[in-house]
Amino acid sequence: MQLQPTKYSIVNEDFLPATEASVKITDLALQRGYGIFDFFKILNGEIKFLEDHLDRFYNSAEQMHLPVDQTRDELKAMLFELMKKNDLPESGIKITLTGGYTPDGYSIAKPNMIITQQALTLNKGDIAPGIKLITHSHQRQLAHVKTLDYLMAIWLQPLIKEKGADDVLYFSHGIIRECPRANFFIVTQNNEVITTATNILKGVVRKQLLAIKDSGFNLTERDITLEDLRLCKEAFITSSTKNILPVIAIDGKAIGNAVAGDVSTQLAAKLKELL
Amino acid sequence: MQLQPTKYSIVNEDFLPATEASVKITDLALQRGYGIFDFFKILNGEIKFLEDHLDRFYNSAEQMHLPVDQTRDELKAMLFELMKKNDLPESGIKITLTGGYTPDGYSIAKPNMIITQQALTLNKGDIAPGIKLITHSHQRQLAHVKTLDYLMAIWLQPLIKEKGADDVLYFSHGIIRECPRANFFIVTQNNEVITTATNILKGVVRKQLLAIKDSGFNLTERDITLEDLRLCKEAFITSSTKNILPVIAIDGKAIGNAVAGDVSTQLAAKLKELL
Repeated sequence: MQLQPTKYSIVNEDFLPATEASVKITDLALQRGYGIFDFFKILNGEIKFLEDHLDRFYNSAEQMHLPVDQTRDELKAMLFELMKKNDLPESGIKITLTGGYTPDGYSIAKPNMIITQQALTLNKGDIAPGIKLITHSHQRQLAHVKTLDYLMAIWLQPLIKEKGADDVLYFSHGIIRECPRANFFIVTQNNEVITTATNILKGVVRKQLLAIKDSGFNLTERDITLEDLRLCKEAFITSSTKNILPVIAIDGKAIGNAVAGDVSTQLAAKLKELL
Repeated sequence: MQLQPTKYSIVNEDFLPATEASVKITDLALQRGYGIFDFFKILNGEIKFLEDHLDRFYNSAEQMHLPVDQTRDELKAMLFELMKKNDLPESGIKITLTGGYTPDGYSIAKPNMIITQQALTLNKGDIAPGIKLITHSHQRQLAHVKTLDYLMAIWLQPLIKEKGADDVLYFSHGIIRECPRANFFIVTQNNEVITTATNILKGVVRKQLLAIKDSGFNLTERDITLEDLRLCKEAFITSSTKNILPVIAIDGKAIGNAVAGDVSTQLAAKLKELL
């Protein structure tokens, strides 16, 4: 999945050739990792769940003391103009808001907004082959905010590869949290579908899934323990790019029959109706 | 303390006018907060504790899977050339190493190295008036590495101001850790000088101070509890820019007589001899 920016990117108000777009080295994201972002999925030339993502973007910015110059309508107009210029009907747009050009290497200044668009082959709702996870004890700081902090996730990549896995599942004090870029669900032996509830970033696909009224299953949010994980019959993750993606093994131990489970498959079909 | 880069900065091999120096928006520090740095103090045109800082820089890079193109001697030559061009006898040099221009927004690429120099008025070892701290429950991730992650520290700035304090002291599970940019010491009622030992970044001034043989005090590294904090008679922090800086109040409660204590003052004098 190459995410190279394509044709045009936006830095603040300027539409720039994507390969030339740059920021000065005094930016607080570069100096101190300080900033937030959101990711918008585009299918058939249309942004999916646009309002949900804008809600989260503005909320992340506010939580992090980063004022956004643009009103919601102005920001939408910029996204639509970028989409027109780039003409990528299946793609992702990332809006990053940084702490700006800091005068002292530490203080927040007027934020810089960076918008990039990348062609993507997106999952349209079909169930995909499963992935393998390792667990790692870690609690994301400011977990409810979509910050730029992926230090632990990227640092763990060599270990994930070494273990023959695809991604990492964070837990903290015996309670499951999330994957770095996805929410986590289990299906119990009683067909109860549970997703983690606390100290996580609540994803948009997670929200859409929980809102489905006629799924035929009992979907609930509550803490999932490491013991729940050991006993579950299915597990899956959700994200904007992956929709529902089965988890077939965790720490080298198979989940169920190590294939996409029945409940996961039925929920994926329900979610597909929404897309 | 303005840290604006002065005259020249270095981006990879290039000496650039500091105000123009920039990196492309695909840099992994900007995208995901992934990178490390170190800070070198220059007094009378000479880098203090150069080898200690280089040790830590190369160690941070290795821990974070970031190869450094330059040998130690090559890197020193670059620093010396920058110092010559900028001619700032009292200043700080920051070397930042990022995850590079990531092809997919997530993977480490060939790192970008950014070197900036700023004029600074540095503490030369004299004891300074004390500061006030608030405590906050937080454990830095990958604490032994000097990463770019200052998310919590910068996020807390409005709260620190609101409380009339100057900085924050992190604790985790009842154990004191560190300030965002400084190590922490207490002096007990028995004149024992203790600094926190675990899950911290071990600073160069901290190391120098612990190495002083004839300080006249018993300096030890061990866990400091919140209870130890309540009972101590002096407290101070150490950092490259601050040397020894007394802490006169924590969470609104005075430490000792809320002035620089005798032990802190004597240790500051000993440290001054080293500089």
